[in-house]
Amino acid sequence: MDNAILFSNIRRKKSYLCVGLDSSIEKIPKHLLDFDHPVFEFNKQIIDVTASYAVAYKPNLAFYECRGSAGWKELELTAKYIKTHYPDQFLIADAKRGDIGNTSEMYAKAFFETLNFDAITVAPYMGEDSVKPFLSFKGKYVVILALTSNPGAADFQYFRSCDDTLLFTEIIRKSKEWGTPDNIMYVVGATKASMLTIIRELIPDHFLLVPGIGAQGGSLEEVAVHGMNKQCGLLINASRSIIYAGNGLDFTEKAAEECRSLQQQMEKSLSKSHLL
Amino acid sequence: MDNAILFSNIRRKKSYLCVGLDSSIEKIPKHLLDFDHPVFEFNKQIIDVTASYAVAYKPNLAFYECRGSAGWKELELTAKYIKTHYPDQFLIADAKRGDIGNTSEMYAKAFFETLNFDAITVAPYMGEDSVKPFLSFKGKYVVILALTSNPGAADFQYFRSCDDTLLFTEIIRKSKEWGTPDNIMYVVGATKASMLTIIRELIPDHFLLVPGIGAQGGSLEEVAVHGMNKQCGLLINASRSIIYAGNGLDFTEKAAEECRSLQQQMEKSLSKSHLL
Repeated sequence: MDNAILFSNIRRKKSYLCVGLDSSIEKIPKHLLDFDHPVFEFNKQIIDVTASYAVAYKPNLAFYECRGSAGWKELELTAKYIKTHYPDQFLIADAKRGDIGNTSEMYAKAFFETLNFDAITVAPYMGEDSVKPFLSFKGKYVVILALTSNPGAADFQYFRSCDDTLLFTEIIRKSKEWGTPDNIMYVVGATKASMLTIIRELIPDHFLLVPGIGAQGGSLEEVAVHGMNKQCGLLINASRSIIYAGNGLDFTEKAAEECRSLQQQMEKSLSKSHLL
Repeated sequence: MDNAILFSNIRRKKSYLCVGLDSSIEKIPKHLLDFDHPVFEFNKQIIDVTASYAVAYKPNLAFYECRGSAGWKELELTAKYIKTHYPDQFLIADAKRGDIGNTSEMYAKAFFETLNFDAITVAPYMGEDSVKPFLSFKGKYVVILALTSNPGAADFQYFRSCDDTLLFTEIIRKSKEWGTPDNIMYVVGATKASMLTIIRELIPDHFLLVPGIGAQGGSLEEVAVHGMNKQCGLLINASRSIIYAGNGLDFTEKAAEECRSLQQQMEKSLSKSHLL
């Protein structure tokens, strides 16, 4: 994929919603536990009812790994299902990987080749050679953590140099040189919307993956006002507020309702920015 | 485990060697490919001949994940084999995880409960709430990336504040307050041995996991001189230089030779520091 395709999907769907598949076997409706692959079955049903409102899906690796190879199998089935039935959906592995060069190469192979994801989230702490191996895959994206949505973001991400550069801006400034807006995106938490103006000065053209609305309390409207660019440039993620909107037989209906409501807000903001 | 047990293992073995299991199906001897679980078979044979020279093993997750659920299965078998046959070995998941609180909890569950690892490496970029969930498991360790062994370490880890604090020292200074020397260790690359004196001033009692000797060119002797504390406080890792020392039928013999040579150097340095 590239930004032009992503933007055309956004215009067609009138949505820049990413559905986070933080699917935990302990939280899915009980009637699914009889299936061979209950988490996959849950994801499949969620995907089928939300796909028309979303442009991207983001399985969170931790929720699969915590069940070992059985969980990993459910992840594989989920990735394959999306790529087979909804090939225009942008598929992000929320993995936050990053290691020395030869190891990052292995991770890139795991997510881009074995599992056919379009993008993977990466932690920048180990620098250029930990990110570069991901950038050599054509049509794939690295999503670099810049300013995260959690309280701990304050511990190091605002670390300030003498010339008043904050660590997260230094990371954006350096790392954007490693690739292009067509193979790098950045994570910026919705809870940090006030920083989007500074960030857009540094990277006017890159897409931002924005977690933190819904359960974490960030505002969609504020993110749209400060973060949108001429190709939209935003993928706003919600996870728990969608997938656990209901927890009985009606879980698909509730998830769809939640997505429809987010999509409608997104349509408004796209109109306001004359992007439709 | 705790530091006292680790130190007693080090004294008994006269070694602080950690064997890195960066085991790739493309690099293991061809005659192992007929086994149902060739990478596990490789690991098993490596472990059996090196266990008397080592106090720790460190599977590198990327090398397992790159083969999906099949690779994950080999990791499970490996972890179980070590914990069953060599329960005194300290088992580290080199995973470099770290995410928002509820996600880190899932990772902690994956590695400490499902796989029964003693420790996991964690990237500090997302701050306290991304690390804390790992610290609530009794007898388990978080190994926080401080100064890594790769060239990209220079990109952000030396980022400097006005009062001349470097980012990696800020990370150590803050994060050591989140736990104790009995549940936190730090990664410091052997290629950065000159920084060990500063680091020991900040954390005299913590164990350091030191990658970067062997294939990456760091010096064991320099690390020992600058990094050793009164409980040794070092786990020095070598991966490729051990597990790929040979690549025919003699791979176990060559791996054992390489370990013996490292163990002998370690015994000397322990003697010199009057720790035996």
